Amino acid sequence: MSRKLVILTEGHSNTHTAKTACSVLRYRPEEVEAVLDGTQQGMTAEQLLGVGGSIPVIGSLDEAPNANTLLIGIAPPGGKIPDSWLSVVLSAITRGMDVVSGLHDFLSDDAEFAQAAKNHKTQLIDVRKNNEHEIARRNGLREDCLRIHTVGHDCSVGKMVAAIEIVNELKRQEYDAKFIATGQTGILVEGDGCPVDCVVADFVSGAVERLILKHQHHDILVVEGQGSLVHPSYSGVTLSLLHGCLPHGLILCYEVGRETVTGIPDLSIPPLTEIRRLNEIMASVYQPCRVIGIAMNSNALTQQQAEQERRRTEDAFQVPVCDIFRHGTKPLVEAVLKLKQDR
Amino acid sequence: MSRKLVILTEGHSNTHTAKTACSVLRYRPEEVEAVLDGTQQGMTAEQLLGVGGSIPVIGSLDEAPNANTLLIGIAPPGGKIPDSWLSVVLSAITRGMDVVSGLHDFLSDDAEFAQAAKNHKTQLIDVRKNNEHEIARRNGLREDCLRIHTVGHDCSVGKMVAAIEIVNELKRQEYDAKFIATGQTGILVEGDGCPVDCVVADFVSGAVERLILKHQHHDILVVEGQGSLVHPSYSGVTLSLLHGCLPHGLILCYEVGRETVTGIPDLSIPPLTEIRRLNEIMASVYQPCRVIGIAMNSNALTQQQAEQERRRTEDAFQVPVCDIFRHGTKPLVEAVLKLKQDR
Repeated sequence: MSRKLVILTEGHSNTHTAKTACSVLRYRPEEVEAVLDGTQQGMTAEQLLGVGGSIPVIGSLDEAPNANTLLIGIAPPGGKIPDSWLSVVLSAITRGMDVVSGLHDFLSDDAEFAQAAKNHKTQLIDVRKNNEHEIARRNGLREDCLRIHTVGHDCSVGKMVAAIEIVNELKRQEYDAKFIATGQTGILVEGDGCPVDCVVADFVSGAVERLILKHQHHDILVVEGQGSLVHPSYSGVTLSLLHGCLPHGLILCYEVGRETVTGIPDLSIPPLTEIRRLNEIMASVYQPCRVIGIAMNSNALTQQQAEQERRRTEDAFQVPVCDIFRHGTKPLVEAVLKLKQDR
Repeated sequence: MSRKLVILTEGHSNTHTAKTACSVLRYRPEEVEAVLDGTQQGMTAEQLLGVGGSIPVIGSLDEAPNANTLLIGIAPPGGKIPDSWLSVVLSAITRGMDVVSGLHDFLSDDAEFAQAAKNHKTQLIDVRKNNEHEIARRNGLREDCLRIHTVGHDCSVGKMVAAIEIVNELKRQEYDAKFIATGQTGILVEGDGCPVDCVVADFVSGAVERLILKHQHHDILVVEGQGSLVHPSYSGVTLSLLHGCLPHGLILCYEVGRETVTGIPDLSIPPLTEIRRLNEIMASVYQPCRVIGIAMNSNALTQQQAEQERRRTEDAFQVPVCDIFRHGTKPLVEAVLKLKQDR
């Protein structure tokens, strides 16, 4: 039976907090019946979140009788479910719906949810739940498989989207490429991957290495980045990922106008030149690795401003720069293919 | 009732793998009844492990009738208990002994051990077990508390010992200093701390920050380092710790003659100058932080060779260098106190 999703974003329907919702709407719209947010009822998903076309925003599960799965559609800092959502989740279970969550607080660890799911024969699917237990060994990596990794200057600036879109364009050009998902949203979109930020710290790079070993029969892997090397809360996850996937090239992602670290408003993000330097230094401990292209998220700019920003960044960094949603990914894909040829 | 330990190192009684045993013998000898290694029975702990004086090495629990606790004395890569030890652990439980373990494989998750412990009313104490669940916030850190952090060029080079010995010397000089343990062995020695490598990746820096917030009523904290920024398996843990404790100064630890990365024999450790550079760069993202002293582990050298190495390193790095076991920690403590005065 195929998934028919209601995506819960109640009271949090902004593109930043509801990034899981937005990405599933963008990449899996055929699976989505409705978005559930009683505070925004009657709109379309496109009107509410800028993506999802005419998929309706509903105020109650009654309005989506065909849905069989409730998806928790937000990714708040620290990954906790809002208290006010507990009754909605319980009501979904009572209707016989499965519930899918990417939060750190596992639904299946909640005694009330677990009992309800048992009573109603539904599944609680915690995407972040894992049992990774192997350290990285730096053994068996194939050098004929090109590894590209998206990194960024902060959380939620477009690292996952850049990785997915680059892979999609490579596939359109008939290259054998694969998106390597490393976060709950990427996993929901791709159907496989590893939720690295929820792995026991000693085993994060090992988990990433195993993902690479599993998929390196493809010609090109594009590994989704997480957090940033300068985010005090998540930098360790970022470095485990960087050292676990041992990339040959980096795509640097940034959001124009993002000035302070997510969740720490009095901490200014260092300049992008410094972000590039730190990533190249830490990626190059054992083999050279450079930023080969830049994905600019210019949501906040007009078309003209975006073009000015694009040129300014391209001049400063001397690599292709583009906004994936405005310009597509062709300049970045060309940079990937050039790296592949040059190696 | 005070702990009377038998330390299990069966078949692994070398100072590298049995570092937990060595450290407890060094810093808690009054708690240790015996070391259990049937392959080395009849020796003293000092003869076997270079520490522990006349504490006997025994071949069976029968030889330590007063012991009430079995301590798993090794820390293998990846943290798994050797299969051959399972019967020894079970036998200890059957005798009514508590069992303390710092391994990633939790004793309390083993159904047979858990049932036996219940039957015999003993405790299974997994030092690495934790429920850390808060991200770092970079909020509330007191600048009148000096934070020193020991870092290194590889695993098991003396970062914990350096931190403990510096704190002990500071206390001898009547400063209000505290050792912040971040690994299972340090926790066993100090009686508190956080096993950072076993925390869920997103929460490592948060767990470290909470340790700092809890103990910053002391004047000086010396935070034990873990792994290294260039170890592909553990670099993320190292960076989470570095960014979680936000040190004012670093003590760089290295072992003379250590040339390849622990567990990855074909990977050469970068030169110590590069290790210093990487640590200072990553420690200084938001505030300047430098290496203020170097702890050299010169076990493998003669006295004369060690002195030559010490001078060479001091010339190259222009900071105090000493081997803690040969020279004590006074030069490092002076560097800490100088940093405290200069701030």
